[in-house]
Amino acid sequence: MAVSMDDDVPLILTLDDSGSSTSAPLDDLDREELPNENGGSYDVINDASSPAAGDCCAQQSSARHNWEMNYQEAAIYLQEGENNDKFFTHPKNAKALAAYLFAHNHLFYLMELSTALLLLLLSLCEAPAVPMLRLGIFVHATLELFALIVVVFELSMKMRWLGFQTFIRHKRTMVKTCVLFVQFIEAIVVLVRQTSHVRITRALRCIFLVDCRYCGAFMNVFLFFRNLRQIFQSLPPFIDILLLLLFFMVIFAILGFYLFSPNHSDPYFNTLENSLVNLFVLLTTSNFPDVMMPSYARNPWSCVFFIVYLSIELYFIMNLLLAVVFDTFNDIEKRKFKSLLLHKRTAIQHAYRLLITKQRPSGISFKHFEGLLRFYKPRMCARERYLTFKALNQSNTPLVSLKDFYNFYEVVGLKWKAKRNREHWFDDLPRTAFLIFKGINILVKSRVFQYTMYTVVAVNGIWILVETFMLQGGNFFPRNVPWSYIVFLTIYGVELLLKTTGLGPVEYLSSGWNLFDFSVTLFAFLGLMALAFNMEPFYFIVVLRPLQLLRLFKLKKRYRNVLDTMFELFPRMASLGLTLLIFYYCFAIVGMEFFAGVVYPNCCNTSTVADSYRWVNHTVGNKTVVEEGYYYLNNFDNILNSFVTLFELTVVNDWYIIMEGVTSQTTHWSRLYFMIFYIVTMVVMTIIVAFILDAFVFRMNYTRKNQDSEEDNGIVLEKEISKEEVIGIIELYKRSSAATDTAQLQKIVLQMDKYGQMSMLFLGRRSRTKSDLSMKMYEEEIQEWYEEHSRKEESQTPLQEPASASNSSLKPVSLRQRSQTVI
Amino acid sequence: MAVSMDDDVPLILTLDDSGSSTSAPLDDLDREELPNENGGSYDVINDASSPAAGDCCAQQSSARHNWEMNYQEAAIYLQEGENNDKFFTHPKNAKALAAYLFAHNHLFYLMELSTALLLLLLSLCEAPAVPMLRLGIFVHATLELFALIVVVFELSMKMRWLGFQTFIRHKRTMVKTCVLFVQFIEAIVVLVRQTSHVRITRALRCIFLVDCRYCGAFMNVFLFFRNLRQIFQSLPPFIDILLLLLFFMVIFAILGFYLFSPNHSDPYFNTLENSLVNLFVLLTTSNFPDVMMPSYARNPWSCVFFIVYLSIELYFIMNLLLAVVFDTFNDIEKRKFKSLLLHKRTAIQHAYRLLITKQRPSGISFKHFEGLLRFYKPRMCARERYLTFKALNQSNTPLVSLKDFYNFYEVVGLKWKAKRNREHWFDDLPRTAFLIFKGINILVKSRVFQYTMYTVVAVNGIWILVETFMLQGGNFFPRNVPWSYIVFLTIYGVELLLKTTGLGPVEYLSSGWNLFDFSVTLFAFLGLMALAFNMEPFYFIVVLRPLQLLRLFKLKKRYRNVLDTMFELFPRMASLGLTLLIFYYCFAIVGMEFFAGVVYPNCCNTSTVADSYRWVNHTVGNKTVVEEGYYYLNNFDNILNSFVTLFELTVVNDWYIIMEGVTSQTTHWSRLYFMIFYIVTMVVMTIIVAFILDAFVFRMNYTRKNQDSEEDNGIVLEKEISKEEVIGIIELYKRSSAATDTAQLQKIVLQMDKYGQMSMLFLGRRSRTKSDLSMKMYEEEIQEWYEEHSRKEESQTPLQEPASASNSSLKPVSLRQRSQTVI
Repeated sequence: MAVSMDDDVPLILTLDDSGSSTSAPLDDLDREELPNENGGSYDVINDASSPAAGDCCAQQSSARHNWEMNYQEAAIYLQEGENNDKFFTHPKNAKALAAYLFAHNHLFYLMELSTALLLLLLSLCEAPAVPMLRLGIFVHATLELFALIVVVFELSMKMRWLGFQTFIRHKRTMVKTCVLFVQFIEAIVVLVRQTSHVRITRALRCIFLVDCRYCGAFMNVFLFFRNLRQIFQSLPPFIDILLLLLFFMVIFAILGFYLFSPNHSDPYFNTLENSLVNLFVLLTTSNFPDVMMPSYARNPWSCVFFIVYLSIELYFIMNLLLAVVFDTFNDIEKRKFKSLLLHKRTAIQHAYRLLITKQRPSGISFKHFEGLLRFYKPRMCARERYLTFKALNQSNTPLVSLKDFYNFYEVVGLKWKAKRNREHWFDDLPRTAFLIFKGINILVKSRVFQYTMYTVVAVNGIWILVETFMLQGGNFFPRNVPWSYIVFLTIYGVELLLKTTGLGPVEYLSSGWNLFDFSVTLFAFLGLMALAFNMEPFYFIVVLRPLQLLRLFKLKKRYRNVLDTMFELFPRMASLGLTLLIFYYCFAIVGMEFFAGVVYPNCCNTSTVADSYRWVNHTVGNKTVVEEGYYYLNNFDNILNSFVTLFELTVVNDWYIIMEGVTSQTTHWSRLYFMIFYIVTMVVMTIIVAFILDAFVFRMNYTRKNQDSEEDNGIVLEKEISKEEVIGIIELYKRSSAATDTAQLQKIVLQMDKYGQMSMLFLGRRSRTKSDLSMKMYEEEIQEWYEEHSRKEESQTPLQEPASASNSSLKPVSLRQRSQTVI
Repeated sequence: MAVSMDDDVPLILTLDDSGSSTSAPLDDLDREELPNENGGSYDVINDASSPAAGDCCAQQSSARHNWEMNYQEAAIYLQEGENNDKFFTHPKNAKALAAYLFAHNHLFYLMELSTALLLLLLSLCEAPAVPMLRLGIFVHATLELFALIVVVFELSMKMRWLGFQTFIRHKRTMVKTCVLFVQFIEAIVVLVRQTSHVRITRALRCIFLVDCRYCGAFMNVFLFFRNLRQIFQSLPPFIDILLLLLFFMVIFAILGFYLFSPNHSDPYFNTLENSLVNLFVLLTTSNFPDVMMPSYARNPWSCVFFIVYLSIELYFIMNLLLAVVFDTFNDIEKRKFKSLLLHKRTAIQHAYRLLITKQRPSGISFKHFEGLLRFYKPRMCARERYLTFKALNQSNTPLVSLKDFYNFYEVVGLKWKAKRNREHWFDDLPRTAFLIFKGINILVKSRVFQYTMYTVVAVNGIWILVETFMLQGGNFFPRNVPWSYIVFLTIYGVELLLKTTGLGPVEYLSSGWNLFDFSVTLFAFLGLMALAFNMEPFYFIVVLRPLQLLRLFKLKKRYRNVLDTMFELFPRMASLGLTLLIFYYCFAIVGMEFFAGVVYPNCCNTSTVADSYRWVNHTVGNKTVVEEGYYYLNNFDNILNSFVTLFELTVVNDWYIIMEGVTSQTTHWSRLYFMIFYIVTMVVMTIIVAFILDAFVFRMNYTRKNQDSEEDNGIVLEKEISKEEVIGIIELYKRSSAATDTAQLQKIVLQMDKYGQMSMLFLGRRSRTKSDLSMKMYEEEIQEWYEEHSRKEESQTPLQEPASASNSSLKPVSLRQRSQTVI
């Protein structure tokens, strides 16, 4: 097989001359159905240049070659479907395939990620650097150049795979190339001048992270890199409402200026600009009662102005804005899910057409399915491959139809395990031991035991609370270990022991909750050690003692539900969090370039927020009193400080103090930075909030519907395999001389013989993913989408066919055909 | 008819002896179908004791009596259905009916409302009174007693109608009675002692407002008065999450205390109590960067503690809490909608059974339908009654079937108008005038004209902005009117004139937008007058000038949509706002009782928030500088001040300053008041926010679906009436000697003759209500509910029948039957 990777050998050795008709993919399947003799052919993916494999394969017949090529291409289609890669980036010839395989490799991904991270982390050491990490300009500029060269290498690999034409058309890659170009020039300029200039473009570095495979799949919000038109379509409503907001703000600013500027003790409305800025800040409620107070003191009815303003702007239009953001986000999510779903479907169709034969066009036989899986998931063992096939095949015929094959992505992720024959780990022990362990098992599983433990934890919690309450200052870390600590720890230890023996270590640790108990107890034990041996640096463990109370969580089903939902949502939350971090990064770079070093103690004595930046060393009597405003700490002096400052801005409260401090040291235009940041984070936070809200409401409705059913443990599938089936597959594998596979299958037969069973039950399990939830959510619409999609496809095919062999056509054009046109 | 209202005369004069079988309501309808000769019989409702009517009716036949009674009872059923009154409060006999009619009367409702308002407004004048409204104790206590006596009268009427048994079983009324009793005793105590004591129970006064018919239907949130069990069912999840929140707060408080109390410059964590309070305040972000600063200054990594705390508590659990509140609220709304829908359906069934005859059991004839409407909507004219009948009757038979009758509530609210024959108001004018007006009409309707006006408004806006910007302090109100003002006003005046003449005054003013234009221009004109004649007190009108910019709103369809949605939502928003006000009232009373007068300038010099309460009169050089903290203005000294203070607490920012100020003057326990208030308003605000969000998202989806259809103008129905039909109805009315009705219908015939039409089109129109939106929202589920409901009813009927003549039975037991058992 590896031969086909070499440039000189044509990708396909023989080709049937039927490829030009419209039904090409189905017609070119009249190959011989030969057994698949080379079991190691998936090595091609991992070990493309192995000469040994090349030698051995050179003697294979052309039909077998064809099949291997088909398997590989089908696997690539399925991967593209999964990763939402457009099909026009599908490798078109042998050279492209080699580059494709090289660039779709965990090592390559890792390189991508680490260069991106290196570039991002460089800002820790550049110009306004974190003091401890400061590097010479020569050092960090060289590092940057190195990283950029790696990116150039990555891009050139991509170009090799995509071809120049496609490369230009691929928007995301083009943006990346431009950014790379700018960065390159700037890095060289820095190296030559030996000094940093204002490099706001550093904020663009995150593009490398976003484009990197490991993160790209992760960040939903950045899908606008994929479809810019979509985001532009959904922007206008947002801008409309924002304008409405600003419009009312201007009206109220003028009104406020007219109403309150005659009052000379009111500093908030003395000019129109102040009036505007203060009403913007009022929108964030950050200056609320204060901004009202001077006018309220003069005339109590002036509060009406503020109440009306807040009611209209904050409680109405702001919510409207959130509604629009929420709606847009949901719409984008839905459209993205739809396009991904249809994309996957198309990918499956492409793969399917490559795997059926002319003789049997109604489905895929196990042999071919197995060949596909060897490329698609090289790590899968023979048993799992067969179980996946069985799980897909719902018609009980030897072929998997297209309809069944559509479930490919749902089924292929399942982890298969034999259903346990033994109930407990101690079933095989002698009678006495069995009875003892059985007793422990029953005890451990009893409600009494559970509730006793909860009581102990609760008592422990109250104990800690009271102990802390009594301990007003003074000796926090007693020299000798307090007895209460030992008592509770002993109880936890006994519980741990009982549970481990009663349930068996494997079952005990398979539950996340037990794992949590275990680690908490371990931590407490480490804390005890730290106390007992007076290890000062580990005292923080003692401080973490209250975390033991978290065990009480298990008590209520609702809490468990909450935590389960949390874990389920984690990938999406992480993606949103990462997005937020990237925004932070951009703003931090811009902030550092403009505001580094402008804020320091007593810097802003002329501004209205002077108090917050004060640092005075009074001497009252014989005592030195330090009056500190502390706000000078919220600066942009290095990237870590900037992140903290930006977090404070995100929390919004008193953000205007930071803004006014910076503004008083720079220009009025600095306010724009803070205001834009406010709007951006508001949008992102809204999406996060709306998202959590949505997920939980959905979850609650879901549990309400399925109240009687058991707690759900993700997706579970059960399949039975009979002995004859296994023996049949062994025969198949024996012919294709796959020794490890055969051995593994024979083990199953042995096991069946041992327990005298004629068949064996296997459980396929995987955790519920975002896609599963979405499937449930849009259940009704999905069928419509499918129908619409297939209608569109049908109508498109005859239309597009005569036009050109367009790459974006949905009709799969197999590698062979294309390579023919290339050669 | 009125005779039947007298106690001595039996309600039903003759009764067929078939009332005891299970199908009673259908069986007892074998009355003669006599024409309805007394057209004024609905006067019974309005004028029950008129002796003349009594005399005249005493001679009527029993069958006609029966029919009138049936009409009235059916109308009562339908009213009960609409108002969601339980059927067990259905009047059971003639005495009860009289009381029922007395208590369901707009005069009575008005009395209810005004007593409730009087009681609420009394707190303006009681003990910590608004200075200008202070009344002597004797005066306000007497007023209170008077109002309470009126409430006693109302309750006694209710008891008369419900009967003692039902009165006791009616929870809401019982609560009201208890509150009334307490209030009565307290009022007397105040009168006797001539001094006010701590009267927290005054907070309960709002029950009178909630129970009052005009408001009760209005306040969804108070439905827990209707179904306490429901609210208790939905409370646990909320409390669970709240506990989770507090639980983490305690853990972090302990941690924070351990971590930060060694730092003596950190006042926020020096005791466990401070630690807890500050973390609670941190949850509201109100003290955010400040609480972190002392520890952050010492060790930059301590920010991790705060970031983790805020991420978990504020951004995760808090959202969870909101999700639970939102979910619960939605669930309650849905359940309430469902129960109301089914209740209405049952009411319609009851009414239907009273209106069909034995001879024609398949539907209601127009005669009986008309009789019902005369009781149900006395103000409806004959034409509208017939149109309603036609709108209901979809089968084109002379009878309205039960299926059609189910739409009763949707159709009965329609306002019917003849579809205009003339397109413009000037169609009948002479040719020249017609052409001129037609020209104006075309001009006014043209896009060019519209956009010119928008441009003028925009220029005006920019003008005002620039003018204001140039005007930095000084002479705000020029002695002579500025020319720009006159120019713009002239343009607006010309626009108004053109539009009025072009469209005709009626059509012009029928559009809300034109009305808005008109009033804005009028205001501007008044402002001009004020300026021209130097009327100082009216200068505020000049200040309102920027409001003219609101006209730009029309420009975008989206804004119009927003405003339309706003108006559509207005009833629900108002109901939520009213609910919030009632909460405010309760908290204000409690706040006033405990904290009136505790806060004053320089009151809190020992607390950490001393600065905010400072009022110092420095003399720097020869100038007097007043240093004001102003926060002493946020007090509970009277109910108006309390409301402003509570609004500030609702906005949340810096609320802890108010809390700490009060706490430093009273006890630590005062914090509970503020914390509870925070949680309550958070929940209410969440509901408001969630509600706005939900409504807009729903609206947006709705408009997205119906993009091609025209802008919707509420519910519109079109019905055609032919001349023959009208003449037929006139015949019917002539027989029943209803002179006004006949005259009105004859006018229609005349109009048809004038234009030579054989038929006339009528448009029925009403605005979309909350119920319509909900109908759309739950479209799919409604059918299920109906089926479930009818199943349940079927299974219940045979079960309940033999048990007893239970009042809560869903099967309607007609007045007649019950009156028989009473006699």
